[in-house]
Amino acid sequence: MSTPAAQQPSPQLFFQTVNAHQRTEALKAAVELEVFTAIAEGNQTAADIAKRVSAAERGVRILCDNLCIMGFLTKSDDQYQLTPDSAFFLDKRSPAYIGGATEFLLTPMLTAGFQSLTEAVRKGGTAISEEGTVSPDNPIWVKFARGMAAMMMMPSQQIAKLVDPQADKPLKVLDIAAGHGMFGIAFAMNNPNAEIVAVDWSNVLKVASENAQKMGVGDRHRLIEGDAFDVDFGNDYDVVLLTNFLHHFDPPTNETLLRKVHAALKPDGRAVTLEFVPNDDRISPPETAGFSLVMLAGTKAGDAYTFAELDKMLTNAGFKRSTIHPLPPGFQQIVISEK
Amino acid sequence: MSTPAAQQPSPQLFFQTVNAHQRTEALKAAVELEVFTAIAEGNQTAADIAKRVSAAERGVRILCDNLCIMGFLTKSDDQYQLTPDSAFFLDKRSPAYIGGATEFLLTPMLTAGFQSLTEAVRKGGTAISEEGTVSPDNPIWVKFARGMAAMMMMPSQQIAKLVDPQADKPLKVLDIAAGHGMFGIAFAMNNPNAEIVAVDWSNVLKVASENAQKMGVGDRHRLIEGDAFDVDFGNDYDVVLLTNFLHHFDPPTNETLLRKVHAALKPDGRAVTLEFVPNDDRISPPETAGFSLVMLAGTKAGDAYTFAELDKMLTNAGFKRSTIHPLPPGFQQIVISEK
Repeated sequence: MSTPAAQQPSPQLFFQTVNAHQRTEALKAAVELEVFTAIAEGNQTAADIAKRVSAAERGVRILCDNLCIMGFLTKSDDQYQLTPDSAFFLDKRSPAYIGGATEFLLTPMLTAGFQSLTEAVRKGGTAISEEGTVSPDNPIWVKFARGMAAMMMMPSQQIAKLVDPQADKPLKVLDIAAGHGMFGIAFAMNNPNAEIVAVDWSNVLKVASENAQKMGVGDRHRLIEGDAFDVDFGNDYDVVLLTNFLHHFDPPTNETLLRKVHAALKPDGRAVTLEFVPNDDRISPPETAGFSLVMLAGTKAGDAYTFAELDKMLTNAGFKRSTIHPLPPGFQQIVISEK
Repeated sequence: MSTPAAQQPSPQLFFQTVNAHQRTEALKAAVELEVFTAIAEGNQTAADIAKRVSAAERGVRILCDNLCIMGFLTKSDDQYQLTPDSAFFLDKRSPAYIGGATEFLLTPMLTAGFQSLTEAVRKGGTAISEEGTVSPDNPIWVKFARGMAAMMMMPSQQIAKLVDPQADKPLKVLDIAAGHGMFGIAFAMNNPNAEIVAVDWSNVLKVASENAQKMGVGDRHRLIEGDAFDVDFGNDYDVVLLTNFLHHFDPPTNETLLRKVHAALKPDGRAVTLEFVPNDDRISPPETAGFSLVMLAGTKAGDAYTFAELDKMLTNAGFKRSTIHPLPPGFQQIVISEK
């Protein structure tokens, strides 16, 4: 660990990291003010953008310069332009617009978890409250359902095609903690004979139901309101979806739920788990493994579980065999488990 | 601006940026808990580190995994190690320790400026108060003086050597808005015949004075308490230091101060300005140009001024000629102006 003379110690990473919160706030301000949409509409100078977004020219100039530095815009001769990614994802008129995700990802309850991270490390779990983000009927999950639907479009379609590639037989799908409902809805869109049963708290299910109507599959989308740990799932499911759910809880809690899932499946049914699954080293791939910090900040005992850990929970709950599948270009993985 | 088929649109930068605040909080927690110092002392497993810092093993494991992902630690066989930079800058026992800078850089008044950035862009200046961070006797400057002294050691020595390379003649130095006092103190340490007069609010000058005593130059370090715009500087200075001061104000305000500086100098005296001086495009170099956002968030009308802008203010105030000098490996520049 010696430092060669040629390579002076540098405080650069320290500064970039201490100041990283500034980049979050700059992006949030740009989304809130619709700066990307204003530029997409043809406003390219700080003065024109400022007029369109009802802000001060000085404020817009400094914000846009920083968006260039951060890689969201380019600039030549005092004219700002969108990068291809910004045009695709951050112009409000784009069907792939994901700016709305900031409302969930930066909702005060989630950021409060990070602001009290020192205490969470001391305690070994969230410092915001006893239950953290998974308290019953927590309104953040309505924000989640509203803000994250657009972003989940692509992975939800990938999963439906992976799990039901023929799409030529009736398929009964249980969508646990459905949220925006997009994962179940993708199965219904992929297969005209699929029927979806979505479970979530009633305030959240309203969003899932709206989305099912919008996507034209409302007649094959039923609802079970309540807590996934308490409600009666029914039975004879071909597929049970557990998308971004297990990471909120400790292994014994997950095993309890997985036994209930196992019982609700047909003899040849499958559980489909979407998770951030890091390698055994727990530090790679970076975006996947880093999700553990979100769980430390926001939950009592959740985690980004390795495949070995998930496999053990699934095996303990009675599943025969589990396999893991990547979902490029995203950072999550799918675990498919046979009853 | 077409997107080739080979290069799919990616939301990766959007996510990294929305979540960037998490990295700030992780580093802050690690500094507060003295995790780096604990590892430097030989604690390498999550269990041992947790014991040393009085925290939960689960919390420490997740935090340290994320510090690996962020580049502050390495990990092999569940043992954590410091990188050379972390050992140099973040072990509390190191003379180059800069962890204390988080207390100033993340002080609630500064982060509040960023949390209200949307409003600051609308308004064209800080939304936290009329005067922002430069209100009289603002206690954040005591935090600044305490937290940033260690970090300024290297640039202050570079500047003293650049401005007074012979160091063989009496030198009367005025250190405006001295803060921790390190810039003036470096001149006194570089030249045994240098005498320093430090100007700042009285609460801040206590820190500068303590540092001068500690560095053994207290007998050549005098104080003028008060606002740099109001106090009588005296005259016949060889050098006037303006370190990280002009960026807080608009050009007319700076010109008023610079005229006063000009009057306080000997006929062959020089003003020495330390600033973040971006290129004319205002977006490069990234770390330098990005400082404009800190000024938008925290001040009414401050900025990261280009050399052309600084040169104009200095010329309007009566200075004959200004030259700019880099201070590698830092992100700031020195402007030396002849009376």
